[in-house]
Amino acid sequence: MSLVFDGKCVVKRRMLTLDPTAFQVEPIDRADHLRGQPDALCALWEEGEAIAFSRGRPLLDEQGCLLRQPTAISGAFEAAFFLGLDGARGVFAVEMSQQAGDPGDAPRDLRMAVGRLPDRDGALAGVGAALFGFHHRHRYCGRCGGAMVTAHAGWRRDCPSCGHQTHPRVDPVVILLIEHDNAILLGRQAGWPPGMVSCLAGFVEPAETIEAAARREAMEEAGAELSGVIYLGCQPWPFPGQLMLAMHGKAKSRTVRLNTAELEDARWFTQEECRALVQGHHPSAAIPPRSAIAHVMIAAFARGN
Amino acid sequence: MSLVFDGKCVVKRRMLTLDPTAFQVEPIDRADHLRGQPDALCALWEEGEAIAFSRGRPLLDEQGCLLRQPTAISGAFEAAFFLGLDGARGVFAVEMSQQAGDPGDAPRDLRMAVGRLPDRDGALAGVGAALFGFHHRHRYCGRCGGAMVTAHAGWRRDCPSCGHQTHPRVDPVVILLIEHDNAILLGRQAGWPPGMVSCLAGFVEPAETIEAAARREAMEEAGAELSGVIYLGCQPWPFPGQLMLAMHGKAKSRTVRLNTAELEDARWFTQEECRALVQGHHPSAAIPPRSAIAHVMIAAFARGN
Repeated sequence: MSLVFDGKCVVKRRMLTLDPTAFQVEPIDRADHLRGQPDALCALWEEGEAIAFSRGRPLLDEQGCLLRQPTAISGAFEAAFFLGLDGARGVFAVEMSQQAGDPGDAPRDLRMAVGRLPDRDGALAGVGAALFGFHHRHRYCGRCGGAMVTAHAGWRRDCPSCGHQTHPRVDPVVILLIEHDNAILLGRQAGWPPGMVSCLAGFVEPAETIEAAARREAMEEAGAELSGVIYLGCQPWPFPGQLMLAMHGKAKSRTVRLNTAELEDARWFTQEECRALVQGHHPSAAIPPRSAIAHVMIAAFARGN
Repeated sequence: MSLVFDGKCVVKRRMLTLDPTAFQVEPIDRADHLRGQPDALCALWEEGEAIAFSRGRPLLDEQGCLLRQPTAISGAFEAAFFLGLDGARGVFAVEMSQQAGDPGDAPRDLRMAVGRLPDRDGALAGVGAALFGFHHRHRYCGRCGGAMVTAHAGWRRDCPSCGHQTHPRVDPVVILLIEHDNAILLGRQAGWPPGMVSCLAGFVEPAETIEAAARREAMEEAGAELSGVIYLGCQPWPFPGQLMLAMHGKAKSRTVRLNTAELEDARWFTQEECRALVQGHHPSAAIPPRSAIAHVMIAAFARGN
């Protein structure tokens, strides 16, 4: 039991502890002070490591690990993004599809493939994929329509016409562990694989706290009125650039008023059912893999710690 | 004292409770299901309330409150954004500068002016200002350079050329209460008013947790190594669209290694000094106003609750 803070009120409740998830490891020293120093980066490039991407997706080797190679054979420094320092060594993300030779195939289901990588590789792939996605979606200036150029070693886009600068976008999303009397509410969207259920989630809107966003999403999607909302932990989800903020709240009742524009179904799962979901032998439902924070949230509830 | 979670480790510490801040109030039911229903919105417009903006800034009346008027005299519905429902009444943000007559003057220092508004007015002004800023920065499509159009009652921009859609951007920022042995670290940037100090802060990067971002920023800006990082609360700061996430962490020592590219100075303030800062009679330093979460964080530490 623990005292925790929610808005003005201090409530007593069981504390849920999330296991570490994919993309939570910091794989590298981001060394952001070097991003604006082309001379230092060129020197790092000489002896650096390149992580290979094709059309913005990381390439994997035969063992299913990230394809890494010395920067010396990776083409021009100008086409690389600086990911950071591994000790004294520079690590770069390099787009290979525009180069000679066969760049190999990037995995089609990036989420699954990256989720299966070792933690550090997955996190590096995530940073790179987020940067490539950023450049792809900001080729032109939102203010004047001019062509933007890559700046700051891949961490900024600049507009030479009007001077506008833009940085990689990180979209905060609340993902909800909605509890009532030892059960949680899980929903499913129409396009998901049969039986798949997960935590309700939605984007945080402008001028909104994450606690308010959690209450709003629970109400919008399932008509659930939440109280005692607290933050549990987070996971970056770089497809393309979400920041998943795990929130816990208590529903006032088990009544569900389904918003069919967002969800196909939503129902309550007891703690025992959640144990079966986590172990993968629930008779009719399944949850996302361990690499997703939804899995980790459901597992924490199932464990009850 | 309380058990709190940070990564894998469970630490015992004093719990800091933040007072409510500006922009934390949800001023309105955002009613997002209505955004895609032009007929319903037109009906709401007939009897609605318009909040007046000029060049994206809220206009104030003689009492310093938001300028509100019946939608009937506010021009065309097409130029309005739907903010939500106040009971059964629709509330809209309307840009007045393109209309006949004198729209009045918007406050130059929007942050100060909005901070002085009643909570609900400030929050409404924040939502509107964030939306106007979004439209201003996304006039053209980042993917193809085509002109975008307003969609979803102001909550989306669509590109008729390539079909790209974009939503208002919310940029998560960590703001840090860095504690060591009953003192906290405050810094100042070169452009600030004389004596002004505040909490260190920085943008969350792609593929990064908020806890990792807090550790990175403390290290980058002041060479401070943090442990036991926890989330305290948040405040939207819609100028133009930040989400300030208040984080608390313990520094390993009082050594400060200043990054002069980011900060002009940083030093430790004892709890007693923080009390003087909050009360506004510190002999040499001052902190941001009550409307900023930095003030609320420093006040929580000064109180020591």
